[in-house]
This record gives sequence, C-alpha cells and structure tokens, in this order.
Amino acid sequence: MAQHNAFYAQSGGVTAVINATACGVIEACRQAPDQIGKVYAGHNGIIGALTEDLIDVNQESDEAIAALRHTPGGAFGSCRYKLKDIETHRAQYERLIEVFKAHDIRYFFYNGGGDSADTCLKVSQLSEKMGYPLTAIHVPKTVDNDLPVTDNSPGFGSVAKYIATSTLEASLDIASMCATSTKVFVLEVMGRHAGWIAAAGGLAGEAEGEPPHMIIFPEVAFDRKKAMARVDESVKRYGYCVIVVSEGARYEDGTFLADAGNTDAFGHRQLGGVAPTLAGMVKQDLGYKYHWAVADYLQRSARHLASKTDVEQAYAVGREAVALALAGKNSMMPAIRRISETPYQWDIIATPLADVANREKFMPPSFITEDGFGITPDCRQYLLPLIQGEDFPPFENGLPKVARLSLTLAERKLPDFTL
Amino acid sequence: MAQHNAFYAQSGGVTAVINATACGVIEACRQAPDQIGKVYAGHNGIIGALTEDLIDVNQESDEAIAALRHTPGGAFGSCRYKLKDIETHRAQYERLIEVFKAHDIRYFFYNGGGDSADTCLKVSQLSEKMGYPLTAIHVPKTVDNDLPVTDNSPGFGSVAKYIATSTLEASLDIASMCATSTKVFVLEVMGRHAGWIAAAGGLAGEAEGEPPHMIIFPEVAFDRKKAMARVDESVKRYGYCVIVVSEGARYEDGTFLADAGNTDAFGHRQLGGVAPTLAGMVKQDLGYKYHWAVADYLQRSARHLASKTDVEQAYAVGREAVALALAGKNSMMPAIRRISETPYQWDIIATPLADVANREKFMPPSFITEDGFGITPDCRQYLLPLIQGEDFPPFENGLPKVARLSLTLAERKLPDFTL
Repeated sequence: MAQHNAFYAQSGGVTAVINATACGVIEACRQAPDQIGKVYAGHNGIIGALTEDLIDVNQESDEAIAALRHTPGGAFGSCRYKLKDIETHRAQYERLIEVFKAHDIRYFFYNGGGDSADTCLKVSQLSEKMGYPLTAIHVPKTVDNDLPVTDNSPGFGSVAKYIATSTLEASLDIASMCATSTKVFVLEVMGRHAGWIAAAGGLAGEAEGEPPHMIIFPEVAFDRKKAMARVDESVKRYGYCVIVVSEGARYEDGTFLADAGNTDAFGHRQLGGVAPTLAGMVKQDLGYKYHWAVADYLQRSARHLASKTDVEQAYAVGREAVALALAGKNSMMPAIRRISETPYQWDIIATPLADVANREKFMPPSFITEDGFGITPDCRQYLLPLIQGEDFPPFENGLPKVARLSLTLAERKLPDFTL
Repeated sequence: MAQHNAFYAQSGGVTAVINATACGVIEACRQAPDQIGKVYAGHNGIIGALTEDLIDVNQESDEAIAALRHTPGGAFGSCRYKLKDIETHRAQYERLIEVFKAHDIRYFFYNGGGDSADTCLKVSQLSEKMGYPLTAIHVPKTVDNDLPVTDNSPGFGSVAKYIATSTLEASLDIASMCATSTKVFVLEVMGRHAGWIAAAGGLAGEAEGEPPHMIIFPEVAFDRKKAMARVDESVKRYGYCVIVVSEGARYEDGTFLADAGNTDAFGHRQLGGVAPTLAGMVKQDLGYKYHWAVADYLQRSARHLASKTDVEQAYAVGREAVALALAGKNSMMPAIRRISETPYQWDIIATPLADVANREKFMPPSFITEDGFGITPDCRQYLLPLIQGEDFPPFENGLPKVARLSLTLAERKLPDFTL
C-alpha cells in the first residue's frame, strides 16, 4: 500500500480526554509508517483545513504526543464552526478536498459530536463524487453523552466522575454546616438538551436521605411549586437539601429556567445561570439560606479527576479510527459497545456514519424516577461503570503537568481562502 | 498525672482538611491514655457543648478515625455561632464550663478561625476565674488564610491547589475554543476580605501571556474602565482572557461588585455572584462571548485534590495541640512556622492566643503587582510550597471513600439549656 498523509481535527466543545483520543490517533498513525506518512492537525479544528493552517504533527516529539493523554482542552485548537449545507455552500467542501489533495491527505479523522459526524459524512460523499480517494472516519467525543449507537461518548465518563465527586464532597460540607447556616446547596451542571451529566450527580448517594436530594433534568418539565415542596421536605427531614440542576432545566412551555425574563438593572436578561435562579426561588418561597455553584468549564476540563475507563475508551477510539481507515472502511465511526455489565466489559465496533449523524440520544424515561427528581437503579447501573478507575496525571511543582506542543504550521501550497 | 476527658469542636466554614486535624487530635489523645480518658466532640461545634450534645468519640473505631484524614467537610458538624461578649452573656460561658465539669472535661480543643480563637481565649480566662482547671487550645483552620502569626492556615493550601489546578485546566479549555467561541472566562473564588485564594489562581501560569491574565483582589479597588481595558488588551494580544476574581472584589467606596444594586424582575438584589456581574460588564462594554464559573463549596471541599503539604500540616497541628495541652500550655495555638524556603521546611510553634484572636492577615502590598492584576514573584514564592504534593484519597466504586462515623451522643447529665 502506498504512503499517504492523514489529517486530524477537533470539533466543538472540548473535553478532559479529547487529547487522549488525539494521542491514540497520532500514535496509531506513527505505528503505520508504510501507509501513513505525515499527520497534520487542523489549527482550530476544521477551520484550519479550510484556511490551510495545518499543524505539522511530525514536528512533535513522541513524549509530547504521549503527554496529550493526560492534558485537558483541545491541544490543536477546536472550533464551533458547522459547515453549511452542501447544496448552497459546495465551495467550502470542495476547498477541503483541494487542501487534502494539495497535501496528499487521504485519511480524514474528525473528532467531535453529532454535527461533526454529519460534516464528516458529507465530506466523504463529496470526495467520492469528485473522485478523490478519501477515507473519512468520525471519532466520537462529547461530554453531553448524546451520541447515538455508541454506549457512551468519550468525555462523558470523566465529567460524570467529576460531578459525582463534587456533589459528594460539597454535600459533606453543607451537611456539617446546616444546623446553623446553609440549608440548600445548588450545583449547576452542563447539558442543555440531555440530563446525562445531571444524572451523574445522582451517583454521589444511594441510600434514603443521602444527597443529592433532587436532580432537575431538562427532560422533566420544571414545576416550581412541586420543586419547592420537595426542597422544603428535604430540609425538614434531613436538615438540608442538595440539588443538582442541569443548565437545560426548563418549564413546561420550553422556557429555560435561566432565561425566565429576569432582567438586571440595565434591562438586560439576567446573566446568572439556572443555579442562582433556583437559589432565588428557594429564598423567595422558603426563606432558606442557600449556596450555589456553577461548574461550567471546570467540569469538562477536570483532567485531574478523569475516569480511567473514559481515558482508556477515548484513547481506544482514536487508535481504532486509524485501524478502520487502514482497513479501508470509509464513512464510519468507532463506537463503544457494552458487552457485559458485571464485570463491565466493552469493545469497539464500526458504525456507519449515516446511523450517527444528526441524531441525539436523550435519557430514557426508565432512567428517571417517577417523581422526576432522581435516577433509577437502571440508570445507576448504566452510569457506574463509566466513572470507574482513576487516572491521575503526573504533577509537577504542585500542578498537573500538561503537554507543551510546538504547533508548527506546515507550509501553505494554495491561495488564500475566505471563510 | 490523673486521667481527665477532652473536648474537641469544629467552628465556622469547614475545609477539605479540617477532619485531618480532628484525626490528629483524636489519635494523639488515644495515644495518651494515662492522661486523657474519653474524647468528646461537639455536635455541630460549640453549640453541642452548650446544649450538652456531646458525641462520644470513643465509640468510633480506629479505622473510622483514620479515615477522617481523607474526608472533607466537618465530620462532627460545625456551626456559625459566635459566643457573644462575656460581660452581658456570661451565662453562656458559665454553661460551657458547667458542661465541661459535668463530663470531667479538662482539655478543650477548638478548631477554627479568628472568631473561635477569641472564644477559646475567653473560655480559658473565665475558667481560670471560676477556678476550673481547663487547658484550652485553639487549633487553626481556615481556607481564607487570614490568621495571624501562623505562616499559613490549614485548609488554605488545598483550596489554593484546587483553584490553581482549575484555573490551569479551564484555561486550556478556553484557549482551544477562543478562535471561534468564548473569549473571556471568569472564575469566582472565595475570600470576602483577603485575596489569598484569588492569588493562588495566579500559580496556574507564570510566563508572559500565560493565564490567568487578570486577578481581581478585594485589596485593590475595582475600576471598571481600567479592568475592561485590560480584558480587551488580553483578548487582542493572546486571543482570550482568563480572570480569577475574589468574591470580595469591591469598588473604591467599599461596595461589593456582586452587590452593586442590580435587581431581578422581582425587585430583589441580584442573586448572581461577582463572576456573572463581571461577565455582564464584559458583554456590555466589549461584546465578547464569555463563560463564568462559581466554585463555591466545591473549592473548599475538594479533598480529592488536597495538597499533601496541607494535609500533613492540618494533621500535625491537631497532634501538636494535644502535645501542648499535655505539657500544660494553656490559651495557646499551634502555629506553622516557615523555617526555610528552598527546600521548604516548617515546624510548629506555640503561640499565645492573645496574639491571634481578632486579628486578620491581609495580602501584603508586595504580593500584588503594581497594576493590581497579578501576583509578584514574592507571592509565588510564598504560595508554591503550600500546594506541593498530592494526597489522593482512596476511591471505592469510582468515588472517594469517606469516613462513616456512628456519632453516638453521650448521656446528658445536666438540665436543658436554651441558646
């Protein structure tokens, strides 16, 4: 087989382990020198391919690439840039293929969520039409865990472990203070459409009375009266109430809690998230002292508390993507398959991109308790394997050691292109 | 020496390592059976002594006590309850001594910050006046690092490590997204009066351009125009701006940023903290896309990322408190002394409570850069030793394992007392 080059790009919001996937892709490419020559990475994701800002990954040492495995963020830069529909914006897709052609890139690894699976599929289809022999593989990633087919999405297990741990730790804090001080603690977590991350908070406790006492999912319409009654009951019964709330929590009519028309002194929409909004309701309806936290980027970059299972899966899908490409499988995604529950066993299967693109996976109703505020044993059984094991990064001078890449750009061969 | 009992209580906001101090106190007591009989702990702090809710610590196994070393929160319950002035509320102090007398308690270990040092001193003075032989030792604790005399306060090193790590990790996240998405990230940290925790965020980067690009201290009057100019400059120069802001950030006139008169739709003071307030300014003045996080309890309960140095010091002050008491030193506090910087060496010295009570330690001006937005090399040199080393807790089923205590209450011997 002749030697050609490979291109790897990161797409959308990053995770604590997307670089572990990059590490898997690059290491597998380096181990196939007969088929794969250079590896290029898109500077700031797919935009780098359009503007021909290709990072020459061959300039990076094996040590630097190995260190990607324990470095959060997106080492080559990611982007929120969705290629528009192919009918009216064909030029962009053609440009991609021109850049690939100019750099002899025949392997395209696109690491992202649902949107990028769709882009990957379209690029693959167009290259076929244009007679350019490209093998396009989508590599799954998203903290939201909303990709279909795959048992879970790399990135989710680590945010789940972080949120479960933080809920446990913060609960011990408030439990020790509630006699005379804070009675309600609200932790806001990511997940605008699906409540997977909020559900992970539920792993912090299992027995009657153990926090969190309430989870507020985007899947369950928020009813202020019902929710506040539950807060009150929890405070009266256990002395305090811990709430994990999804940023996507919404009313029956679809309005987000965090966007309920509250305005600040300047007339702007209230900037606070759902946690302060909910805390405000607690104050107003019940008068309890509260504290709230918004984890935001901390949760999806907390590589220091990554799930070992997640790191291994993130790395494995990267390697498997290359294996699929070298086997000539085009328009595919390596997906994680759960083989058994106890003990937890998994492998990776190849899934056609057509089955993945533009489909979202929500929490099944059977994972949410009847009252809408908790997770069921089925949900716990699904989630627990994903947070198993620790994979602490090396520390240096008190802080996690991270990869330092040179990010050298390859020489351009084409005229400029305006996005 | 005859055998008498000991009483230990936790006071004020808890930390990731206050239970390590409890562990030190209790283990040292158990190793002195000739002098110390039973150890009691105040249920919910000093309130437990007033209401005679004494936890019989002898009912807890050695394993449970050892597990306190890696358990966040306050295992016996803490409280925000400051004994009032002794002149008009002498009854409370006398009640304390009655309870001590009833349970043959002659050793009083009070684990807290500045307020509790003051209470400890007063109890000691009154017991002397009343002719009751009590040895009162204050054991330092506070995430705020604002206790005088001691080089640092147990609890601070761990929150510093957590904030520095979180700043580093979140910065890698935004750095990889800033080309097309978020340009400004704001992390709000604790510290209402002193900027020690915010300063710790500065450890995440050192070289030119490394985040955080700005720290906003309570010690430096906030100037919106100057601050926004700095944000803009950072975004233009580095592509993004990471800000660590203290919850105590305030204007020249002392008004907190988070309390600047903004009201929600119901006319209530804006509930958001300083992070959303600052993010709102960024949006309004500069139009940049932002994200913000409020660490709140997560930062002071993050035992999973504790500083080994901090855990060792927290445990050591606990043990030393008992050693001081057994040596007959009354009204003292074990304080940490920095012996040398490189290598970092420390020991514990006994400090009279009169030198500690009611004094706050602020950031010295020499620790803040001239522009008011950064930490100096002196500050870095002071902070770095405190975050050294990791002391990961044991994990079980994916989550940190925590101490499970029985918290059995001792039988009451006195009539009820109303607080």
